[in-house]
Amino acid sequence: MKNKIIAIYPGTFDPVTNGHIDIIDRASQLFDEVIVTVALNINKTPLFSSDERKFLLKEVTKKYKNVKIDSFSGLLVDYAKKNKASVIVRGLRAVSDFEYEFQMSLTNRKLAPKVTTIFLMPNEKYTYLNSSLVRELSKFNGDISGFVPAIVRKKLKEKRKKD
Amino acid sequence: MKNKIIAIYPGTFDPVTNGHIDIIDRASQLFDEVIVTVALNINKTPLFSSDERKFLLKEVTKKYKNVKIDSFSGLLVDYAKKNKASVIVRGLRAVSDFEYEFQMSLTNRKLAPKVTTIFLMPNEKYTYLNSSLVRELSKFNGDISGFVPAIVRKKLKEKRKKD
Amino acid sequence: MKNKIIAIYPGTFDPVTNGHIDIIDRASQLFDEVIVTVALNINKTPLFSSDERKFLLKEVTKKYKNVKIDSFSGLLVDYAKKNKASVIVRGLRAVSDFEYEFQMSLTNRKLAPKVTTIFLMPNEKYTYLNSSLVRELSKFNGDISGFVPAIVRKKLKEKRKKD
Amino acid sequence: MKNKIIAIYPGTFDPVTNGHIDIIDRASQLFDEVIVTVALNINKTPLFSSDERKFLLKEVTKKYKNVKIDSFSGLLVDYAKKNKASVIVRGLRAVSDFEYEFQMSLTNRKLAPKVTTIFLMPNEKYTYLNSSLVRELSKFNGDISGFVPAIVRKKLKEKRKKD
Amino acid sequence: MKNKIIAIYPGTFDPVTNGHIDIIDRASQLFDEVIVTVALNINKTPLFSSDERKFLLKEVTKKYKNVKIDSFSGLLVDYAKKNKASVIVRGLRAVSDFEYEFQMSLTNRKLAPKVTTIFLMPNEKYTYLNSSLVRELSKFNGDISGFVPAIVRKKLKEKRKKD
Amino acid sequence: MKNKIIAIYPGTFDPVTNGHIDIIDRASQLFDEVIVTVALNINKTPLFSSDERKFLLKEVTKKYKNVKIDSFSGLLVDYAKKNKASVIVRGLRAVSDFEYEFQMSLTNRKLAPKVTTIFLMPNEKYTYLNSSLVRELSKFNGDISGFVPAIVRKKLKEKRKKD
Repeated sequence: MKNKIIAIYPGTFDPVTNGHIDIIDRASQLFDEVIVTVALNINKTPLFSSDERKFLLKEVTKKYKNVKIDSFSGLLVDYAKKNKASVIVRGLRAVSDFEYEFQMSLTNRKLAPKVTTIFLMPNEKYTYLNSSLVRELSKFNGDISGFVPAIVRKKLKEKRKKD
Repeated sequence: MKNKIIAIYPGTFDPVTNGHIDIIDRASQLFDEVIVTVALNINKTPLFSSDERKFLLKEVTKKYKNVKIDSFSGLLVDYAKKNKASVIVRGLRAVSDFEYEFQMSLTNRKLAPKVTTIFLMPNEKYTYLNSSLVRELSKFNGDISGFVPAIVRKKLKEKRKKD
Repeated sequence: MKNKIIAIYPGTFDPVTNGHIDIIDRASQLFDEVIVTVALNINKTPLFSSDERKFLLKEVTKKYKNVKIDSFSGLLVDYAKKNKASVIVRGLRAVSDFEYEFQMSLTNRKLAPKVTTIFLMPNEKYTYLNSSLVRELSKFNGDISGFVPAIVRKKLKEKRKKD
Repeated sequence: MKNKIIAIYPGTFDPVTNGHIDIIDRASQLFDEVIVTVALNINKTPLFSSDERKFLLKEVTKKYKNVKIDSFSGLLVDYAKKNKASVIVRGLRAVSDFEYEFQMSLTNRKLAPKVTTIFLMPNEKYTYLNSSLVRELSKFNGDISGFVPAIVRKKLKEKRKKD
Repeated sequence: MKNKIIAIYPGTFDPVTNGHIDIIDRASQLFDEVIVTVALNINKTPLFSSDERKFLLKEVTKKYKNVKIDSFSGLLVDYAKKNKASVIVRGLRAVSDFEYEFQMSLTNRKLAPKVTTIFLMPNEKYTYLNSSLVRELSKFNGDISGFVPAIVRKKLKEKRKKD
Repeated sequence: MKNKIIAIYPGTFDPVTNGHIDIIDRASQLFDEVIVTVALNINKTPLFSSDERKFLLKEVTKKYKNVKIDSFSGLLVDYAKKNKASVIVRGLRAVSDFEYEFQMSLTNRKLAPKVTTIFLMPNEKYTYLNSSLVRELSKFNGDISGFVPAIVRKKLKEKRKKD
């Protein structure tokens, strides 16, 4: 038997989509513990605060016993080491994701050779789904019921009303 | 603790390269058992017979206690089920690999929803390395010492002499 | 009111898939007449003869009153001119299709400036579906029920038995 | 004979280029009516106001009897429905356009299944032409005579003088 | 003043096209000597013999005083060394060329660190032009006058008659 | 013997990396004079001022006798003409660079037909290296010793302290 393997799944999650949940579901079956962690980026102004994003992630991953929700700033590999994670999980949806992901994967490998980045492909229903599409559709009251869980739809509706 | 996770790493391995070994090394750390399995394809005429390819794979993976060598024909998902594997490992090196891999990953997911395909990126030293480049260089006596283990070089040399 | 517009939809159709039918359905709504035409290519050995491919196309497009089935050899633009077609319809599924399609589109534009190539994207369910995947799965008795109509499944089964 | 088919061709058109005009020319031959519509995007600061962009589009499409100029905000599919359009026309020039266009095409298909997105490829002279290149060249007084009609050149010159 | 720089421009040239000539023209201005060299590949059956291809290359490059025509088999870097060439010239037309060219460039760099591969982009008129398109069009008597010089058209016509 | 050939290598160089130096090294061997020139872009706020960037470039290219450091604003082709340069050198690292580079290359060719753009591929160690990755890693004190020369590391450290 191998040692316990801890994986981290970093992202902006602004907000979490069904595509993210698909990845979390897969990762939770492969590894002993999965830490879904919100990347705090001071350069971008998110629609949801980091607390809101963590709340939504917690709500939609309740049923996974080995999934934890967290946030981080700074270098991902430093966060991985601090959490004894040996795996970074990334979703790979389209060719346009590829080169950025490859760059980050190789850079992280140089900085932390013992941490392995693995890529999972979401269901093809989610190939062209991302959070910014969800935000855009929601802004104009488009139908997003196939893209995000009910609680995320509810929170997006509340945001819309405040505008 | 999770159940034992068995991963299969299918390929042509004609012959195994340092890029393949890099993937096997990573996979052996992530999963309880890794089956490296030679895909038998009647449409292609390989340089090395399937027995030669399995022999070379065994030689270069000796030090990994949880790695087995095998071969298969037919559908990969059928092979995965027969071997109780829940993970398919694939190396992803370049954009040109992407769409074929995506197609196979989504098709296999449809045929066997419980099997997850994961992608690993080899060291950038091996980004543009593949078996056909090795065969081509070897044919003209080019230097392949950075690309394959010594025993593969030796066997390639023997093939060259027989020509 | 415009003149009657005739579109041709050329392809190998070996065999026709649900992705092709999706394109035919769309094209039949846009144009007055759609000629689905089997490209005869002496360099490739198809699984189905041109007569079998035309038979299957006829069966699965019965309900479209403005769709005709045909075959051709030689240059597509000569075929278009002979049939008074001003539109060539092509499905565009993935980045790997793009450059070949662009090359053919620009070449045909040079040879026949009055003929316009239009591209349609099939439903994302069919993004990674093509005839060669269907043939491969069928060979090993994989489940292709989501990929082709029942009559195509039946004919593929008959082919398998003859092997 | 089919029903009258109305197509919309949305874009930023800041300013209209010869590549856009090439697409409009083709679309006007395929469909009964073509509505070229300026997308109003509050997040971007355009060089030309929406009125200026519509003026230039009207000037350069005068000769097309079935082309109308308009503008819109909100979701494109809502605009399509309101205008009884069953076709969305998009130019596809390069691989880098592809995935964004695919995403929008599939999303719009989900939101409005009866609206079909079609893609046209402009003449290869315009493959690498876009409005931002025109603005950049104009800013430094570069020669843009092959890229935009005379009236657009004139208006760009006026903008330059005001800087 | 630098040493005399010799460049080689390898290719199949079956047959030479206007795109190749565009590259040769550029290279002849940059380097002291350019050797255009026909790659002999025993696995492919060319339309034109190597002597015919060299004859056509000689005819269409007559006016370049520093261009020589040759052929080679074996590894390109060995050929470069034998000819004291420090530069390999390659045309780069489209994304689909990219990864193969990158692979060869990096491999050749490893085998011969002092030889530099440079890439030139042909005029956009030739972006989607290649020899196989020319052969295909010629086979069906399509108009190739914009794609190849008159003497190549003549030789293609002769081939057609022999079929 | 050819005329003296002057090449320009434009870039942002914020800061210069080992990948840039690799390109400069190659270019200095091919051409009589290489002008490395910092593009001044008023829309971007660089980390290093143009004087700092030129200082660093001078420091790390000291050993190349035929390399000069400069800066420019306006159109690159105007700068090339003013400096009697007939070559523009660009590094090409990844597919994502390709289309932008192709666009600029073809545009510049139209504006200045006698200037040739050539592309060089850096060592694969630098494939996924760029200045923005270096800035990001440096901000969080990540190890950048394999990516930039010592003097650049020192200057980045000073910037970090001022924050």
